[in-house]
Amino acid sequence: MRLLLINPNTTQALTERLAVSAGKVLPPDVELVSKTATSGFPYISSRAEAQVTGVGVLEMLAQHADGIDAAVIAAFGDPGLHAARELFDMPVTGMSEAAMIMSLSLGARFAFVTFTRRMVPWYEAQVTAAGLQSRFGGTFVPEAEFQSIERVATDLREPLVETCCQAARAADVLILAGAPIAGLAEEIAGEVPAILIDPIQAAVLQAAALCRLHGRGADKGSFARPPAKESTGLSPALAARFRG
Amino acid sequence: MRLLLINPNTTQALTERLAVSAGKVLPPDVELVSKTATSGFPYISSRAEAQVTGVGVLEMLAQHADGIDAAVIAAFGDPGLHAARELFDMPVTGMSEAAMIMSLSLGARFAFVTFTRRMVPWYEAQVTAAGLQSRFGGTFVPEAEFQSIERVATDLREPLVETCCQAARAADVLILAGAPIAGLAEEIAGEVPAILIDPIQAAVLQAAALCRLHGRGADKGSFARPPAKESTGLSPALAARFRG
Amino acid sequence: MRLLLINPNTTQALTERLAVSAGKVLPPDVELVSKTATSGFPYISSRAEAQVTGVGVLEMLAQHADGIDAAVIAAFGDPGLHAARELFDMPVTGMSEAAMIMSLSLGARFAFVTFTRRMVPWYEAQVTAAGLQSRFGGTFVPEAEFQSIERVATDLREPLVETCCQAARAADVLILAGAPIAGLAEEIAGEVPAILIDPIQAAVLQAAALCRLHGRGADKGSFARPPAKESTGLSPALAARFRG
Amino acid sequence: MRLLLINPNTTQALTERLAVSAGKVLPPDVELVSKTATSGFPYISSRAEAQVTGVGVLEMLAQHADGIDAAVIAAFGDPGLHAARELFDMPVTGMSEAAMIMSLSLGARFAFVTFTRRMVPWYEAQVTAAGLQSRFGGTFVPEAEFQSIERVATDLREPLVETCCQAARAADVLILAGAPIAGLAEEIAGEVPAILIDPIQAAVLQAAALCRLHGRGADKGSFARPPAKESTGLSPALAARFRG
Amino acid sequence: MRLLLINPNTTQALTERLAVSAGKVLPPDVELVSKTATSGFPYISSRAEAQVTGVGVLEMLAQHADGIDAAVIAAFGDPGLHAARELFDMPVTGMSEAAMIMSLSLGARFAFVTFTRRMVPWYEAQVTAAGLQSRFGGTFVPEAEFQSIERVATDLREPLVETCCQAARAADVLILAGAPIAGLAEEIAGEVPAILIDPIQAAVLQAAALCRLHGRGADKGSFARPPAKESTGLSPALAARFRG
Amino acid sequence: MRLLLINPNTTQALTERLAVSAGKVLPPDVELVSKTATSGFPYISSRAEAQVTGVGVLEMLAQHADGIDAAVIAAFGDPGLHAARELFDMPVTGMSEAAMIMSLSLGARFAFVTFTRRMVPWYEAQVTAAGLQSRFGGTFVPEAEFQSIERVATDLREPLVETCCQAARAADVLILAGAPIAGLAEEIAGEVPAILIDPIQAAVLQAAALCRLHGRGADKGSFARPPAKESTGLSPALAARFRG
Repeated sequence: MRLLLINPNTTQALTERLAVSAGKVLPPDVELVSKTATSGFPYISSRAEAQVTGVGVLEMLAQHADGIDAAVIAAFGDPGLHAARELFDMPVTGMSEAAMIMSLSLGARFAFVTFTRRMVPWYEAQVTAAGLQSRFGGTFVPEAEFQSIERVATDLREPLVETCCQAARAADVLILAGAPIAGLAEEIAGEVPAILIDPIQAAVLQAAALCRLHGRGADKGSFARPPAKESTGLSPALAARFRG
Repeated sequence: MRLLLINPNTTQALTERLAVSAGKVLPPDVELVSKTATSGFPYISSRAEAQVTGVGVLEMLAQHADGIDAAVIAAFGDPGLHAARELFDMPVTGMSEAAMIMSLSLGARFAFVTFTRRMVPWYEAQVTAAGLQSRFGGTFVPEAEFQSIERVATDLREPLVETCCQAARAADVLILAGAPIAGLAEEIAGEVPAILIDPIQAAVLQAAALCRLHGRGADKGSFARPPAKESTGLSPALAARFRG
Repeated sequence: MRLLLINPNTTQALTERLAVSAGKVLPPDVELVSKTATSGFPYISSRAEAQVTGVGVLEMLAQHADGIDAAVIAAFGDPGLHAARELFDMPVTGMSEAAMIMSLSLGARFAFVTFTRRMVPWYEAQVTAAGLQSRFGGTFVPEAEFQSIERVATDLREPLVETCCQAARAADVLILAGAPIAGLAEEIAGEVPAILIDPIQAAVLQAAALCRLHGRGADKGSFARPPAKESTGLSPALAARFRG
Repeated sequence: MRLLLINPNTTQALTERLAVSAGKVLPPDVELVSKTATSGFPYISSRAEAQVTGVGVLEMLAQHADGIDAAVIAAFGDPGLHAARELFDMPVTGMSEAAMIMSLSLGARFAFVTFTRRMVPWYEAQVTAAGLQSRFGGTFVPEAEFQSIERVATDLREPLVETCCQAARAADVLILAGAPIAGLAEEIAGEVPAILIDPIQAAVLQAAALCRLHGRGADKGSFARPPAKESTGLSPALAARFRG
Repeated sequence: MRLLLINPNTTQALTERLAVSAGKVLPPDVELVSKTATSGFPYISSRAEAQVTGVGVLEMLAQHADGIDAAVIAAFGDPGLHAARELFDMPVTGMSEAAMIMSLSLGARFAFVTFTRRMVPWYEAQVTAAGLQSRFGGTFVPEAEFQSIERVATDLREPLVETCCQAARAADVLILAGAPIAGLAEEIAGEVPAILIDPIQAAVLQAAALCRLHGRGADKGSFARPPAKESTGLSPALAARFRG
Repeated sequence: MRLLLINPNTTQALTERLAVSAGKVLPPDVELVSKTATSGFPYISSRAEAQVTGVGVLEMLAQHADGIDAAVIAAFGDPGLHAARELFDMPVTGMSEAAMIMSLSLGARFAFVTFTRRMVPWYEAQVTAAGLQSRFGGTFVPEAEFQSIERVATDLREPLVETCCQAARAADVLILAGAPIAGLAEEIAGEVPAILIDPIQAAVLQAAALCRLHGRGADKGSFARPPAKESTGLSPALAARFRG
């Protein structure tokens, strides 16, 4: 099975960080192929950026889908997830949806822990969209500001551990939300009285599981392929995909 | 007050249809400026298309925002609505959100009546996103297929009236959803035992009201402007907007 | 368009305060007519008082409806709102419903800020009745007690600003609830990191918008006029209205 | 224990019908005192009528509360229930709230069966107010029209049995809603594959139980007595009650 | 009427404590019969223990049901409640369901106050199962640890009063959850600004009321008796009950 | 990785049927070990039976947990699932929870299709417990009765296909609920316009994924191991497990 990991941010270092964390849980028969966006933003943190980036995700899928069995959108907030499910005939997962789903078997309530308040409305919109509010304990963010997106996990390690300990009073499963802190869950698990989920790991495991269960993706129902349509101004690969 | 009506579909005839309907309810001090998308699709009917089109909406706003007091995204399903609220310092409304909101003062429950089953998942996602499920009576669609997007309101008039009469058993306010049937509500009101809402009318009235109430739009809170950010591959106008 | 503003409290000074605030957002073609209750309570703050006052609202509407296009019930808590929609053939809005509805386009979550704990259960019952709990962040009240209903906005200005700043952590749109603090939103907007809504402004704008959208009010569906009925012991004007 | 049964309709025959049904389940130490409204409507079927009648309920309680241990508002829709709990120092129950509450221990989902579509919005507002939507299976009404409020239970017996059988597919506990069909549950129980609840029986049993559990009624919290208040235009008994 | 009180814990002292508290509210025509479990745990505090104990409850009911009119499962968390309703032809109530139900007529929101954090997930699962989350204010627990299950009410009296005072900010009706603190509500009522409910009292009152309303228990609908079934390895009494 | 599949029914043929279906999706490094209950019922279809059987599941886990990495409770309705998570230090999944969870990435709404109305209340209680009502489209059951639990999938094939086609109007992902129809999803997929999920496949895939993500199971939070406790009357293996 070949999984395509799409990093919709343009920061290559994040792709590597995500791939390392994902690699730790990959089933033996799964190969991971990672791609970094070449247009868009170094790091997405708003719904405006997610709107733009979601189209980039569709472009990348249109370009790289050949020979791929399932895809993972590697930004918490899942830009383009529902659109991708409609357009592509394979399972597609996102970090926030997959992490929430995995948490449901591990505790009564999940919470998000992230590193900047900017992302809260965008992240929480995913909870609403999934209909999981009754299992949600809130989003927790340290006061401390981060300096560099590539060093968040190091610079904010202590504040994030403290924030996790606070969040543990509101939820029993904590989702460490945001690509820049991929891998942190494993490092700090011993210091937090709650189960920690690394969303990229949840996303690749969920993609692999869906692929074994129903390899064609969401080919019927609400995510069924839209009828063929002509378009203006799209990239050739994406226009071709819409053309059917 | 100058309202910008953005038709995110590339079909000019729809823009005219929407402007006519909107014109019937405009307050005397409001001037309507209409623009039609030049890239994208003739008519949007899926989340994949809405993902792409939402960026087109941001582009159009970036290009035409000067001298404008409020904007209306004139496609039911509200592509780009939340993103636009983040990026622009004026009220922005969408046809589905505004119609749902207006319905709340007119009855106990609203329903959508539309003309093709394709749009149901995309439209119903707006109900979930708005947290209005407890007021929602479902989406109702005639069996008959439409032939041309420009003639839906004429060709399907009778099936739509029948569908409205069925929907009236599940809800007391019916939202005639989809730009191609703008204006139909007024025409068929006498044949349906429920209140009918024309969403473009709701959207311009809501935009005008918000403009009087809080002219700067959602300038604080969850829709506050994201911090300035560099980007790659965006149009100059949109890149400039993200740059702050 | 002529809007009737009904102050269901017997305090004339509140009517003036409400009319001043409403006047700041009135569309140019709208004329405001204000009436103060002559029976009931100086200021309503419980469901028992709202039960009695709601009938007073119906009496006032029955007496003053001639030549009126839409009506506003100017007490947060909306006494008699649903009853009035059934009995009168024009749009009727209430301060709490309208403010909640307007907030939905300005942020993710609204909260109430008010000046006495007495009103909390009555106000929160409006959130439940409207089905908007998933968008509600709670009610926030200063510890300080008010001395005179006519001087609340002055005497409690500082505590209310502080309370708003606390509420801003739970919601991004704050509704300054209660007729005695009409007008305060504008005054303190610069001191609070959230969008503030003045409910009387929302109520008159919503009434004007509904009037343009569907001038006959909720004439079908769940608010349709009840069948004619004889009654005993009602005022002649109200009895006549029930008689049809 | 003395229970006061208040019929807020002016039809004496209904009071008798209600008292007979209530009498069948009264604990041996409970005495029932029944009163019929002298002002208002022969039969309430809208929120406008309930608004007026709710004040009548407060008047009747103010007049007859002496020597009473608990009170029952004997109209489905519970006019004045929350107001009465605030003003009086004893348990007060209503037919719709009590019937819903009792149903929770008898099945997964309750439904209302009633005899005229007019009452649906008013009745369903009680479900929302109680926060019991997830246990609610809908309201079911026969097509047949009733002729006389005093003969509903006889004239519509067959249509109501059929309607119950339909409702039994959506819910396993059926509440026969409306004072004119008090007593019918027992009569038709053998013909319906669901548990039937007679709301007046639920209301007197709930009142007696609350009286044993906490005889002072809801004396603290959200139903606590409002502070003493002067009023204008109320009956002397009710004004005295508000005066504290 | 004979009520069977089943203490599913093996601690006889708790049975006595529960019976004393229940006795204070019993209607004059109701006789209470109490039984203590002879297998299981001294005190249940987890879902694993409740799973095992629920079967014990069925065994005890199968053994002692003769001549009994209604039964009460006297452990907060209601082990075996739904199963018992299916198997036995009489009303069966549980302490958590009954206390929640009774609270609905006494305030806007209920909360649990208990004495050890261990029980929180088990107790809160009852709120979800009953669909009462919108009326729930949370579970409150003192920091102090208890030493002996038989002396909780004495040893933790002060911390529990303090915890109640905190809980009173989140809810207006407090349910003192857990058999070991039966009777405490009455003792500390004067020290807490909220209504206190003693769940065993709610459970016996609810059982008596259901018995008068519908003496056969939930004999139709979702709790109807399952078809006769052979089993392996059950006690003879319970196997006989499943055999029909 | 070794997965233990526990069939809590005493029918050996069902175990084989389940193992065959599970085997089709097993990752290459996963070995499946199946066990059939030796006490209990041939087939569980009520909450009373699930209460008893849940203890059997704990017994079987206590006996067979050695050398096992994760466990699957192979009865839709998940008897003993929450209890098992508390007592055992490995991931445990159930057929209904896993199927619901998997469906969330494949469509907007899931529905259950099963073969006897008896199981509806028990199955639907799982939806409520998981907080997934807003994604649930209902339970659909053919009219036809089954004769033998071992031949359901053959005898009811046609009625089940028809029922699936009806269910496809209410949901886009259908869960074929009940061990006796394991394997049917694959057979009839071509005849149904919706995605079909075979719950045993979802349950083993979810168990394997959880095992890679967090191999110790729910070792913290709401499913954390209860404190050691003495018991009376349990089997030695289960008593030892409670003893810690």
